Amino acid sequence: MHHLHRKKLFSLFDEETAIVYVKGAELMYRYDTDYEFAFRQESNFWYLTGVDEADFHLILDLNTQEYHLFVPNRDAQYAVWHGIVKSKEQYQSEYDPDHLHYDSKLPQVLKELDAEKIYCLDEEQAEFIEEFDREVSIDLEALPDALTHCRVFKTDWELDQLREAARVNNIAHRGVLEALEPGKYEYEMKAVFDYHQIGNGLMQDAYNGIFAAGKNSAILHYVENSRKIKDGDLFLIDAGYECNGYASDFTRTYPASGKFSAEQAEIYEAVLEAQKQVIEAAEPDVKMEDLHVLSARVMMQGLKDANIVTGSIDDLMENDVFALFFPHGLGHFLGLDTHDVGGYPKGVERIERPGIKYLRMRRTLQSSMVLTIEPGLYFVPALLKPALEDEEMSKFLNASKLKNMMEFGGVRIEDNLIITDDGFENMTDVPKERSEIEKEMA
Amino acid sequence: MHHLHRKKLFSLFDEETAIVYVKGAELMYRYDTDYEFAFRQESNFWYLTGVDEADFHLILDLNTQEYHLFVPNRDAQYAVWHGIVKSKEQYQSEYDPDHLHYDSKLPQVLKELDAEKIYCLDEEQAEFIEEFDREVSIDLEALPDALTHCRVFKTDWELDQLREAARVNNIAHRGVLEALEPGKYEYEMKAVFDYHQIGNGLMQDAYNGIFAAGKNSAILHYVENSRKIKDGDLFLIDAGYECNGYASDFTRTYPASGKFSAEQAEIYEAVLEAQKQVIEAAEPDVKMEDLHVLSARVMMQGLKDANIVTGSIDDLMENDVFALFFPHGLGHFLGLDTHDVGGYPKGVERIERPGIKYLRMRRTLQSSMVLTIEPGLYFVPALLKPALEDEEMSKFLNASKLKNMMEFGGVRIEDNLIITDDGFENMTDVPKERSEIEKEMA
Repeated sequence: MHHLHRKKLFSLFDEETAIVYVKGAELMYRYDTDYEFAFRQESNFWYLTGVDEADFHLILDLNTQEYHLFVPNRDAQYAVWHGIVKSKEQYQSEYDPDHLHYDSKLPQVLKELDAEKIYCLDEEQAEFIEEFDREVSIDLEALPDALTHCRVFKTDWELDQLREAARVNNIAHRGVLEALEPGKYEYEMKAVFDYHQIGNGLMQDAYNGIFAAGKNSAILHYVENSRKIKDGDLFLIDAGYECNGYASDFTRTYPASGKFSAEQAEIYEAVLEAQKQVIEAAEPDVKMEDLHVLSARVMMQGLKDANIVTGSIDDLMENDVFALFFPHGLGHFLGLDTHDVGGYPKGVERIERPGIKYLRMRRTLQSSMVLTIEPGLYFVPALLKPALEDEEMSKFLNASKLKNMMEFGGVRIEDNLIITDDGFENMTDVPKERSEIEKEMA
Repeated sequence: MHHLHRKKLFSLFDEETAIVYVKGAELMYRYDTDYEFAFRQESNFWYLTGVDEADFHLILDLNTQEYHLFVPNRDAQYAVWHGIVKSKEQYQSEYDPDHLHYDSKLPQVLKELDAEKIYCLDEEQAEFIEEFDREVSIDLEALPDALTHCRVFKTDWELDQLREAARVNNIAHRGVLEALEPGKYEYEMKAVFDYHQIGNGLMQDAYNGIFAAGKNSAILHYVENSRKIKDGDLFLIDAGYECNGYASDFTRTYPASGKFSAEQAEIYEAVLEAQKQVIEAAEPDVKMEDLHVLSARVMMQGLKDANIVTGSIDDLMENDVFALFFPHGLGHFLGLDTHDVGGYPKGVERIERPGIKYLRMRRTLQSSMVLTIEPGLYFVPALLKPALEDEEMSKFLNASKLKNMMEFGGVRIEDNLIITDDGFENMTDVPKERSEIEKEMA
């Protein structure tokens, strides 16, 4: 299917005596040791080639639209340590390039192609290729932009990979919901989660998963996962794995005891209502920052109903009060990277306002985009304590109530959507209604 | 306990107007993305400080034997994303340095200490520290040597961490033995293994584990783990996790069906006999290369009894025939790195011979060293096919038998030993006798 990705890329360039050069990833080691990280191809290279092996190179000839793949030439010693050494024929049939070469031929092929310009991804790859040809002109702008443009709009095959990652993630999240109970440790939930992912053949996490009980659930990137889960805790899980490189990224928040307290229910409903309204509003031509603001307004109404903030919703928004409770963005693109490329196209800048600057994408939604929708409300002492002492901010806050909520933690609910021609497809199927969660945990 | 490690290091340096500088690890990211690898402290820094957090620095004053720890100064935004910001008091009570500073004070403290020489671990850290003082003399030799010397001989506390990693590894390996059966996939065995490790609170693998069925078991660093396990396959598991940074590293080889075939039993017994003889011989003053040769000789006798090789054991050794079947080293040091430091002290070189050059340590065993003992026999087509066509080598080989063994795979059996004053302590407690394995799998 990756030939469609190359075709898309070719369509963004003129026919010219120029080439695209991309270097595939090498193995990575931990510091100065031989601890080898599990190999994971660099996303752009994977996108263009489908190759998930180390030490490959690619050239696309923009003049002829031909695809050159350079493969490493392994010896018998490699076979002993790392397995089968594929023949050129095997590489050819597996990856189907127009021209297959051993990597030692790279200088010679470069010379033969005699391009006037080489499009590269970054400075490092440019430096590598300049070693072979000091005279050529290098362009570092057009290729990253073009690849980003391609990757934002998923092909059907890509959507299927994302659906498969989501399918397994649904299983793994349900496994954790079943296993959750007070007295267990956060890492035991991670053990259950990883068990389902790996047992279903997904070997690469999409990011460092969050398994957070109690006040840890208010830490956005909590990764220690070492606390004992207590009766009365909220438990937040934010985790997913990749399928053929394509990520899944769901979040759920459950009551460890199996039943939400009245206070937890109020906060939970505020987040859930925001998430559901935003999802219903997701369709082509809607702006992501508008959805972000919509979710914030709905959640502020929830906090107002819970008597945690006071004042009009407009005032709470204008004075950035919402940012105290919702200090991250509503969502991000999802694809070969969990925080996928393309959130800020050229010329679009981040909005430098407390409640919006962490929004990872400002895009008008269009069909075949894939994104997360993940509003959340958190009680973060490091934000709330200074606010309670701030003359302006404290006017909006119910201090007596908030002072008792410093250990409350947080709630986040995150689904993964494909934007379709007339709306969306929600790939996430894990209980999120309160009644459903409480029934599953009963 | 880490003060004992610093004390050991101080004892190897003279009192002088010099300092040791070590930079702790930073977070690592995947290529040009925000995928963050699980943080893992650099081993030497961890050894000296006990700090498993990012962005610390250390200075040891060799004149006063004082310990300066530099900690990062986090802001409220950090708390939102990564959790509690510890106060200086918290850092002080947790790590107990003689002097605690924020990292911004590094230039000032360097100036005040006014050392004539700075001992660094490597060029990169030296370049970092030279930014603050262009005049000072840098030494890159003494510190790595001294740290290696310290780390080779484990303290009681270190031995306890290694025992705990081994205790959980015993549980996880037994879990896999119970779960193993034909029809499952290799990755399902990894899922079971990781489940037990993480569920027992160990979060960091010591290396990329090997779960290899059939012919994959002959690939020394097989990590795909994607094959279906078939009736009649051998299944090789080589995996372990870390406890507080200290690694465990066991290997077992089982018959997927629950019963060894006659041919598998012959090979298995040859490896087991070698492993047991070597372990019984392990004690202070024994040379690792002698154990390596001993294991090779025992295994060659086994292959001879199985009518796979012919000739005298001396001839099979002298002609490097053993290297065709046993192409790696007998074992390695184990500690904060899986292939721990110190295998080749200064002046000791690798032996450039096919069957020995991959041996990771040439040391005379001494009390409080920790190492693996892992002989193996493999049927690697990439080695055997050329040997069968080689005039000299083929004389020693039973071609008709070997030609049918190209899919046999391999057998490796690996335990972790502590060398004691009068022998060894074997930390590995996973079935390895054939009768025991077959009973467990019945």
